Amino acid sequence: MSIAYLCRYDAATAAEELEILRAVIGEPIVMGPPHGDLDEAALAAVEIAVVANPAPGILARMPGLGLIQSLWAGVDGLLADRTIPPAVPLARLVDPLLATAMAEAVVAHVMALHRQLPAYREQQAVRRWQRLAQPFAAECPVGILGLGEMGRAAIDLLRPLGFPILGWSRSAGADALARLQAEARIVVNLLPLTAETCHILAAPFLSRLRAGAALINFGRGGHQVVPDILAALDAGRLSHAVLDVFETEPLPDDSPLWRHPKVTVTPHVAAETDAVSAARCTAANIAAFRAGRPVAGLVDRAKGY
Amino acid sequence: MSIAYLCRYDAATAAEELEILRAVIGEPIVMGPPHGDLDEAALAAVEIAVVANPAPGILARMPGLGLIQSLWAGVDGLLADRTIPPAVPLARLVDPLLATAMAEAVVAHVMALHRQLPAYREQQAVRRWQRLAQPFAAECPVGILGLGEMGRAAIDLLRPLGFPILGWSRSAGADALARLQAEARIVVNLLPLTAETCHILAAPFLSRLRAGAALINFGRGGHQVVPDILAALDAGRLSHAVLDVFETEPLPDDSPLWRHPKVTVTPHVAAETDAVSAARCTAANIAAFRAGRPVAGLVDRAKGY
Ligand SMILES: NC(=O)c1ccc[n+]([C@@H]2O[C@H](COP(=O)([O-])OP(=O)(O)OC[C@H]3O[C@@H](n4cnc5c(N)ncnc54)[C@H](OP(=O)(O)O)[C@@H]3O)[C@@H](O)[C@H]2O)c1
Ligand SMILES: NC(=O)c1ccc[n+]([C@@H]2O[C@H](COP(=O)([O-])OP(=O)(O)OC[C@H]3O[C@@H](n4cnc5c(N)ncnc54)[C@H](OP(=O)(O)O)[C@@H]3O)[C@@H](O)[C@H]2O)c1
Repeated sequence: MSIAYLCRYDAATAAEELEILRAVIGEPIVMGPPHGDLDEAALAAVEIAVVANPAPGILARMPGLGLIQSLWAGVDGLLADRTIPPAVPLARLVDPLLATAMAEAVVAHVMALHRQLPAYREQQAVRRWQRLAQPFAAECPVGILGLGEMGRAAIDLLRPLGFPILGWSRSAGADALARLQAEARIVVNLLPLTAETCHILAAPFLSRLRAGAALINFGRGGHQVVPDILAALDAGRLSHAVLDVFETEPLPDDSPLWRHPKVTVTPHVAAETDAVSAARCTAANIAAFRAGRPVAGLVDRAKGY
Repeated sequence: MSIAYLCRYDAATAAEELEILRAVIGEPIVMGPPHGDLDEAALAAVEIAVVANPAPGILARMPGLGLIQSLWAGVDGLLADRTIPPAVPLARLVDPLLATAMAEAVVAHVMALHRQLPAYREQQAVRRWQRLAQPFAAECPVGILGLGEMGRAAIDLLRPLGFPILGWSRSAGADALARLQAEARIVVNLLPLTAETCHILAAPFLSRLRAGAALINFGRGGHQVVPDILAALDAGRLSHAVLDVFETEPLPDDSPLWRHPKVTVTPHVAAETDAVSAARCTAANIAAFRAGRPVAGLVDRAKGY
């Protein structure tokens, strides 16, 4: 029985990640396609697949598979492959360092919006010396969509800064969402992309936000409907949008988002995986799986996260 | 004996502030020049002067003065008036809300620099999709120059975010400064402007900073030597400068700071006085003064703060 690593990074990145996984896990690991060839016997011998954007169809060709461990926190891309054996446990990455990186990104952009850095930046471009209204963090409720690893870590860093927090999760229900929409000055999306959350950041959602609210999307590009966001910005309903994720990445050159004065574009960097830390979390999950202990981050296939 | 209010704001702002002071302190307060006329008898009757940038020379004409209470935290402008009676106690504003506003500004700009928001902003302008190196807050020591009301409040908000803090104050000495310069990735100036700190942010100071450090000046314009900062930015020694204060404010149109790609200019908004809160602190100090209790924020004229 073997461990296989499957990714579609470029060859150099793939080789580097494999090296780190081998060193941290302390076992041989085979490289699967497209970077390594596995014959039928080798495919049959795979017990654990460690994956980062694997080629569609490949996991279905591993009859002995006991665990699929993703090196990414979001498994929307993985679940889009309908051939993945439904009975095999699938774990997403649960990595405290990843959540810390995300929480720092949330604080950076929430504080930037709270202190109007984009507006002062625009003023600087035209040499305008003008004070803008400046409430305290205590007067600026922040809404967090999704209270998982990422959402909770973000809240833990935002609270000591004095922001009132309004959270929403699946179990929290519609009333919590309505309150968040009515009260939050800054809304941060940290939902996973599922059938239910796809295109949630669209006109119906945006029309219920407090006038002049700002939006931060650190979830997935599939959560947002770009024309609706642009319309809300142009109507003044939204004051600013910070977008880190896009349906097509890298964001195409002809996207209007690049040049919109009220849009901040970042290149999917809210939380980057630390390869060593992810390998450690993977090693711990493999050990738990083999010992029959609970595996962290098991995905509910029906819910999609 | 009376309380006088002396400022050089525009007439509307002056009237508004006076109204707030009267309401909060709950006593008649006379408006001094330039907005109100006080004859010799009225000047002689002034026991307490509440001041925000008073006209030079006016305080010297109040023989009965027992307390000068500034509505500003920085008294460098006030002390530049050499005619102020040296024996009269002078208190600067010590207002927890002002310190909170400053601490929020420090967190906003430290986080923006830490997460490279200015660099991503430049990339967005040319539609470049490129990830930049991203350390954690725990790997990004922040140096704080000045550990007074402002410095301490800033540290209290920065610490829970994970930043290692290096502080420097008068009592901390030269070794603490050398360590801060060698290690800090981001240096925040929160010193008062005195004979000793004037033009501290100049070539000798900057040349000792860690390569690629960023500088934030939220103290006074008199702390910085603009050509030296520009030279350090152009040499790559400094990666970015956030400047909120300037020797001439508003910053003149022809200043090269407005257009430098590595400079963020804000219009003296790091911490704005909340008139009601400042009035409350003033009321408390007046009560303490009259009861013979210690007055908050007494300035040591020899030290200059
Ligand atoms: N931009 C980046 O760099 C980056 C990096 C890492 C991750 N991400 C994104 O962040 C997402 C969240 O990661 P995570 O680790 O925090 O996920 P997680 O631990 O699985 O948490 C998901 C949260 O979303 C809530 N949720 C799911 N479906 C919902 C629905 N239909 N309505 C309301 N709430 C719903 C869940 O509610 P319950 O608690 O009620 O189950 C849970 O609170 C990832 O899926 C990924 O897309 C982005
Ligand atoms: N940009 C804005 O919007 C804004 C708003 C408000 C205030 N400010 C500025 O912030 C400044 C600081 O305010 P604060 O209330 O924190 O002042 P503070 O309480 O008087 O604190 C001053 C601090 O600076 C230190 N210090 C003074 N002279 C020094 C020297 N020569 N070398 C090293 N350290 C020295 C003091 O050291 P010791 O502790 O050893 O005495 C003390 O820690 C104000 O003076 C004002 O210029 C700016």
